[in-house]
Amino acid sequence: MIMAAKVSMALLHYPVYDRARTIVTTSVTSVDIHDLARTARTYGVSPFYVVTPISAQREMVKRIQQHWMGDELSSHPRAEALRVLRTADSLYSVCLEIARETGERPTICVTGASLQERLTSFADLRRAIYEGPLRTALLVFGTGWGLARELIEQADVRLEPIRGVDEYNHLPVRAAVAIVLDRLLGPR
Amino acid sequence: MIMAAKVSMALLHYPVYDRARTIVTTSVTSVDIHDLARTARTYGVSPFYVVTPISAQREMVKRIQQHWMGDELSSHPRAEALRVLRTADSLYSVCLEIARETGERPTICVTGASLQERLTSFADLRRAIYEGPLRTALLVFGTGWGLARELIEQADVRLEPIRGVDEYNHLPVRAAVAIVLDRLLGPR
Repeated sequence: MIMAAKVSMALLHYPVYDRARTIVTTSVTSVDIHDLARTARTYGVSPFYVVTPISAQREMVKRIQQHWMGDELSSHPRAEALRVLRTADSLYSVCLEIARETGERPTICVTGASLQERLTSFADLRRAIYEGPLRTALLVFGTGWGLARELIEQADVRLEPIRGVDEYNHLPVRAAVAIVLDRLLGPR
Repeated sequence: MIMAAKVSMALLHYPVYDRARTIVTTSVTSVDIHDLARTARTYGVSPFYVVTPISAQREMVKRIQQHWMGDELSSHPRAEALRVLRTADSLYSVCLEIARETGERPTICVTGASLQERLTSFADLRRAIYEGPLRTALLVFGTGWGLARELIEQADVRLEPIRGVDEYNHLPVRAAVAIVLDRLLGPR
């Protein structure tokens, strides 16, 4: 099945909450980079943007990417996955870059365990991706304790939270990304 | 929806392949423990067994668990997730323990990106879990480059691999577990 929309994604390290609901900048972690790149590659999501305002952390991400994409490791599945990886200093920069490359502003789809209002279901977003009218979708994931409220309110689409068997809603972002991509883009 | 079967899971660090298809024992990693415990807790899967023949690594797992379940951190979501965690020295020990507690041998369901023969679809296994005849299911995940062949051949159920958009099939185990639990046990 061919997607009607081009789907990319971003992992935001700012502005996100910490456990006390203070806005913080979280650290980039190596396991997030590798896991999300492999999951993105599996489901045809590209680019995958690691977003942080801290330039030293963006440089670290690029060094990890260059290491794996060097000659010795270039046939490793991690190298193939890391080809989808990019860095950016803000969500705004991501949107500008996508607009520059595709000719249109992406539809910003935010995710989060605590989203409650004006939600779009997985089924509806999947349909919009495969059948239109979506053409350029950017899935946005938060680190820490989730994306800042103003970012959620300004988004085009608020994806319904993943629900398990009860009220427990503390999936790691690595698991949440996998489930969201599988529900939106996986074979049916 | 109530599951007809009691579902538990195990992450095996032996016997698994390395990249050169040699049988090895992989190291237990902290991120696997936390991620898989949180995903298991989300989908009502319990216990989650970390399986390794290396006793020092089982001890490490128990220390991590005790740390998070101590008084200061016991209200943290990670503590709640880690309650589902157990350790075992082999898959055989896991089966014995489940049989002792439930009165029946679990149906062993192996997973892996390279499984090819005598597969069960996600839809069929989901139906067997929710509607019967399955009563006690043990989902088995491998680390490294996947579960050893003899273990796959002797299993009761070989779950079909997760497919993305093309032949790339290198999901991290943290993502694979999330997708498998969501497909088998998530809301529909």
